[in-house]
Amino acid sequence: MCAKIKLGILGGGGDSLIGILHRVASAMYDRYEVVGGVFNPDYDLSIGFAREIGLGTNQIYKDLDALIEEEKKLPEEQRMQVVSILTPNFLHFPMAKKLLENGFHVICEKPLTTTFNEAKILDEILTEKETLLAVTYTYTGYPMVRQMREMISQGQLGKINKVDVQYYQGWLNPLIHKKDQRASIWRLDPKSAGISCCVGDIGTHAFGMVEFVTGMEIKKILADLNFLYADNKMDIDGTILFRFSDYAKGIIRTSQIATGEENNLAISIYGEKGGLKWEQENPNHLYFMEEGKPVSLMKPGHSYNSKISLEGTKLPPGHPEGIFDSMGNIYKGVARAINKESYHPAEFPTIKDGLRGMSFIEKTVESHRNGNVWMALDK
Amino acid sequence: MCAKIKLGILGGGGDSLIGILHRVASAMYDRYEVVGGVFNPDYDLSIGFAREIGLGTNQIYKDLDALIEEEKKLPEEQRMQVVSILTPNFLHFPMAKKLLENGFHVICEKPLTTTFNEAKILDEILTEKETLLAVTYTYTGYPMVRQMREMISQGQLGKINKVDVQYYQGWLNPLIHKKDQRASIWRLDPKSAGISCCVGDIGTHAFGMVEFVTGMEIKKILADLNFLYADNKMDIDGTILFRFSDYAKGIIRTSQIATGEENNLAISIYGEKGGLKWEQENPNHLYFMEEGKPVSLMKPGHSYNSKISLEGTKLPPGHPEGIFDSMGNIYKGVARAINKESYHPAEFPTIKDGLRGMSFIEKTVESHRNGNVWMALDK
Amino acid sequence: MCAKIKLGILGGGGDSLIGILHRVASAMYDRYEVVGGVFNPDYDLSIGFAREIGLGTNQIYKDLDALIEEEKKLPEEQRMQVVSILTPNFLHFPMAKKLLENGFHVICEKPLTTTFNEAKILDEILTEKETLLAVTYTYTGYPMVRQMREMISQGQLGKINKVDVQYYQGWLNPLIHKKDQRASIWRLDPKSAGISCCVGDIGTHAFGMVEFVTGMEIKKILADLNFLYADNKMDIDGTILFRFSDYAKGIIRTSQIATGEENNLAISIYGEKGGLKWEQENPNHLYFMEEGKPVSLMKPGHSYNSKISLEGTKLPPGHPEGIFDSMGNIYKGVARAINKESYHPAEFPTIKDGLRGMSFIEKTVESHRNGNVWMALDK
Amino acid sequence: MCAKIKLGILGGGGDSLIGILHRVASAMYDRYEVVGGVFNPDYDLSIGFAREIGLGTNQIYKDLDALIEEEKKLPEEQRMQVVSILTPNFLHFPMAKKLLENGFHVICEKPLTTTFNEAKILDEILTEKETLLAVTYTYTGYPMVRQMREMISQGQLGKINKVDVQYYQGWLNPLIHKKDQRASIWRLDPKSAGISCCVGDIGTHAFGMVEFVTGMEIKKILADLNFLYADNKMDIDGTILFRFSDYAKGIIRTSQIATGEENNLAISIYGEKGGLKWEQENPNHLYFMEEGKPVSLMKPGHSYNSKISLEGTKLPPGHPEGIFDSMGNIYKGVARAINKESYHPAEFPTIKDGLRGMSFIEKTVESHRNGNVWMALDK
Repeated sequence: MCAKIKLGILGGGGDSLIGILHRVASAMYDRYEVVGGVFNPDYDLSIGFAREIGLGTNQIYKDLDALIEEEKKLPEEQRMQVVSILTPNFLHFPMAKKLLENGFHVICEKPLTTTFNEAKILDEILTEKETLLAVTYTYTGYPMVRQMREMISQGQLGKINKVDVQYYQGWLNPLIHKKDQRASIWRLDPKSAGISCCVGDIGTHAFGMVEFVTGMEIKKILADLNFLYADNKMDIDGTILFRFSDYAKGIIRTSQIATGEENNLAISIYGEKGGLKWEQENPNHLYFMEEGKPVSLMKPGHSYNSKISLEGTKLPPGHPEGIFDSMGNIYKGVARAINKESYHPAEFPTIKDGLRGMSFIEKTVESHRNGNVWMALDK
Repeated sequence: MCAKIKLGILGGGGDSLIGILHRVASAMYDRYEVVGGVFNPDYDLSIGFAREIGLGTNQIYKDLDALIEEEKKLPEEQRMQVVSILTPNFLHFPMAKKLLENGFHVICEKPLTTTFNEAKILDEILTEKETLLAVTYTYTGYPMVRQMREMISQGQLGKINKVDVQYYQGWLNPLIHKKDQRASIWRLDPKSAGISCCVGDIGTHAFGMVEFVTGMEIKKILADLNFLYADNKMDIDGTILFRFSDYAKGIIRTSQIATGEENNLAISIYGEKGGLKWEQENPNHLYFMEEGKPVSLMKPGHSYNSKISLEGTKLPPGHPEGIFDSMGNIYKGVARAINKESYHPAEFPTIKDGLRGMSFIEKTVESHRNGNVWMALDK
Repeated sequence: MCAKIKLGILGGGGDSLIGILHRVASAMYDRYEVVGGVFNPDYDLSIGFAREIGLGTNQIYKDLDALIEEEKKLPEEQRMQVVSILTPNFLHFPMAKKLLENGFHVICEKPLTTTFNEAKILDEILTEKETLLAVTYTYTGYPMVRQMREMISQGQLGKINKVDVQYYQGWLNPLIHKKDQRASIWRLDPKSAGISCCVGDIGTHAFGMVEFVTGMEIKKILADLNFLYADNKMDIDGTILFRFSDYAKGIIRTSQIATGEENNLAISIYGEKGGLKWEQENPNHLYFMEEGKPVSLMKPGHSYNSKISLEGTKLPPGHPEGIFDSMGNIYKGVARAINKESYHPAEFPTIKDGLRGMSFIEKTVESHRNGNVWMALDK
Repeated sequence: MCAKIKLGILGGGGDSLIGILHRVASAMYDRYEVVGGVFNPDYDLSIGFAREIGLGTNQIYKDLDALIEEEKKLPEEQRMQVVSILTPNFLHFPMAKKLLENGFHVICEKPLTTTFNEAKILDEILTEKETLLAVTYTYTGYPMVRQMREMISQGQLGKINKVDVQYYQGWLNPLIHKKDQRASIWRLDPKSAGISCCVGDIGTHAFGMVEFVTGMEIKKILADLNFLYADNKMDIDGTILFRFSDYAKGIIRTSQIATGEENNLAISIYGEKGGLKWEQENPNHLYFMEEGKPVSLMKPGHSYNSKISLEGTKLPPGHPEGIFDSMGNIYKGVARAINKESYHPAEFPTIKDGLRGMSFIEKTVESHRNGNVWMALDK
């Protein structure tokens, strides 16, 4: 291995939780060095934050245009190779577009863009350029999620007949029931949050998990969303029926009014030969069920796991790793790709996953508006 | 209390599991004495079985007609007061009808009948007669299920916004994938099993649980069923979207091909003030969730439970009771009703629950056939 | 099978929990008929209780002597064959002695007697007579406890190196801290409760579980008990180190002041080839651990279980049975023995288990009194 | 905040797991910069490893003496302020001694030294110097461990009457049973591993957890260790009875032959008013039990937690953090102390904890050797 990859960050300053998640994740495997970026639209705050996290200020910029212009002047060994986009959703697309066009690799938070068409444009740029783009569907980095994917791809479940995934949160419940209060939540304002709240924010994670883990493509969906109040314009709960085919089906259940739930993403997959169950809040327990046999409780770090699962675990069994480690695994995969080392395609989600996610959000909203009818997803 | 209630049984002979469940349940509170019945259509087998379980044979009959005729001749203190119907589904209706018309109380296994109309006829008989009918939705007898019902009816969850229930089994998976094999399963033959397999057998439990626990009425449903193979005529898996109203919604998820699942009935209910979660396979743990508070793990037998929950527990906390005890609680409720003691309406499911269940099955099948459209349930 | 076994009961009247446990257990497999007994030292109350549970009163007696005298006059097919002793502990010995000497089989609650010597006397009577005696160590009837025993006896764990068992309750905590209050608890009065509270009441269950499950004999023990207050004469908590040999050891941990615990009996067994973990409050989950393999979660009713485990389960997997069912299995075993059917020695605990339990209690108290020193157990 | 703290590391090179744990932990809160050290006794390997993790090589040294000599010549803003000792146990003492005497702060892996007397010497140096020393009892950094400590110190459990802690691993089981194999394990060789294997390695964690969480001092202990084979010189399993006082007692159970166990550290604490239960392998669940109330399941990040618990959580509830985050919290506390910011004494273990740990190991071994007798711990 050579020098650390120089990493720039857009957004993520101040108390930003996503900021700390990405910074720690980048440090997990000694492969990145955060060198600067634009932490805040206010340049002084950006400089102040850089100092607070012990960073030099010479690679802190007023805005993205300045960053691109100045970084390109730097000698290659100092220049940012990859930039993480942690800004509000509507900025993902224009920022990613500029960065990719100017030869920077991009790590972008989800949702990748605000529309499917924007994602399509990024896809076209990526086809032309040699840059790469990763979308941080964080949960795909967990060792036992990767293990599920491997077991399924190796046929240990046989043909998949049914998938059931849920993503339940309750955080909107204390805020939604008073009219004044709900009117002031930016995520419930279509102008700032786009066409969907719950489905766009977390439903897309659930959708992505299904396709990531099964390696199968969801063909069509039928959605019933809930807005809870007539004056509320954004979905805050919804159930989406889906079909891989006429005989392989599933459900995506998602809510932000599931009172008392924290971040309850859970998936069950049933095939001809076996079933798998996993929950994000208890990410180191994977249950493998086969008819007539004891249930197998699989845990990270054991040699019975696949190579890509094992590579996502740093300590021996019984030393619980968590969500920072999951994101760290995604960063490691991106580092491998940047350094042209050999890597597994499941190590990080790409533009394909971003595209699918955007189609899912759009079609789900459309299915509901049209009276809960089946809609085909875009490729 | 006076003498034990004389109980007759139809079906449930030989190795019948449902037979042992009902016999043990009836013994739980020293309130019933099994005196006879028709355990088997073959009279000799019936007699043999009576002997095997240490019963006298003078109240064992050739068939139901003989039972009715002879029992009515007996002095009141020897006569069967209540008869449990444990026969194949298609016999429930004609047997219940005859018994009710002849003044016997009836305890009937679910599904109550094979059509909504049959259930309607029983309802009319019950309106005229003084007999009572209980439908054994077994799971409603669990102390913590009753506790959920009480907490909701007392407003501890506030207005209910979302209900999510699942009933997953995997038993069909080893049988369904070979054409010859699946063709020979009686539950997949519409002639013997009626219009539905999975929804009729277990979906109806999940539906009943929703209405029992919330005390709310499901107004309409939209179903997507799975038959897995083109030559299979019966649903073996399905998801049903439902609505209490435009803003209070839910999902019933049900499967008999959920590989490795045993009898996984689980319900989550989310209200403005709190949420509840319960699972049948771990029936003595009830989770009550309120925003910003620790999760409360409630267990049977503690004084914080409601009266009807406490009455369903025989031993102190930490002595796990199970499904026999749950059915025993239903039998106790019926005994109270027969003896005209004071009892809680939730102590046993009635014809109303039977009627709702039949409508649910019929409309679910219809919704799927019509292309996954909304159907209103019958009252 | 022939007629039901006639069962008499001593004690267990009124609201007695142990009474309902034994009555229900006896009914579980259609093998017993409760015919009478002495439910209460007050004859009128005894008669009243018999009526309350729907029993005839002709086999209700003033006292045990009357019972023995009158029952012996009855024709064999009406006479009690077996009598269950559910009275206070100090009556166990004289009652069991009389019954055995007069040819009645005995089912006795634990602790079998109040001293090791008393148990020794019963042992001698049993050697001479053809009657049998069962001690109701209830928890040995659970299917997964029996499964542990079978797995170990078949060598699936290899040589056992370590056993760790706990029995924690918290019920004394709300009562113990005020001097007046604790002075009035009969279990803390040596005159009525014997030499030990916690060890005698529940430690003995834990001890019995170790020997039952491993089939090994504990050779010596070292105990540290806790009395919590200088004026309290009885142990309410204690830890007992034990040795099977110099290189195979274990711990019994027991408490009645483990605040908030209900009835938390749990055992872990570690052998050269594998480990097992089981908890009484979640009795249908057995964890089998082997180095480098996924943990196996074993559940009742599956064909991978041993014959004696499977015979203790009445319904298919996923239908949780509980403590009544566990006791029911013990009653079934006794019935088989009485009827001279083939049965497995693990189906019910015998005088040998009662003897060992008494030695354990006595030596534990002595070890503590002598300054926490090693004591050998009596054979 | 100012510039990052310069951190040097001794040991932890190559594939060292402890190395990655400390490096990631130091990065968690943007407060440290790893600048160099001695990763390996072989200088070339040390240089190679520095390059591998993207570090400059100008602060990589041949040995500790060179490090001290050269670092002291550097201007203050480049100089290492704190050095983490991750070397084999016998080097902890001489390295820590030199570093502290030369004005460096020290973060040292446990066990702090190989004897109590060595720890005593470090204690004396610290009394004279202004440097600080932290011992990385990693598990004390978990938010819910800190929450237990706060709840107990605030009296939420009342007077503590009983503590039960276990630390079970199974890793020795596959290695111990063959004579040749066990003879070649360095941890079982007193020359390289000191006087104890299991108690020194993990028993000390369990002991430290008891004193950390309760804030109480263990007065005396009685130990029974297991060596499993006559030719094995080191304990590989043991149970230690302990007393806070004549009426407040506890147990430490520890094993490395608990087949199939991974890293099962678990503690239960019972007080007059409540009990607490926590397990390291599921570190985000804390159970608070009060008599007659539902069990409270407490989780990190909720406002009901104490300040020091909340400060140890970076993301909102439901985003599981793990062992790296726990160690990161210890590093954060040390940074605060170094920077003379206000910090809570529970933020990192100190020389006092190191001293107690060493006394515990020595007295435990002595208690066993002397025939399982009570030994008082050194202050």
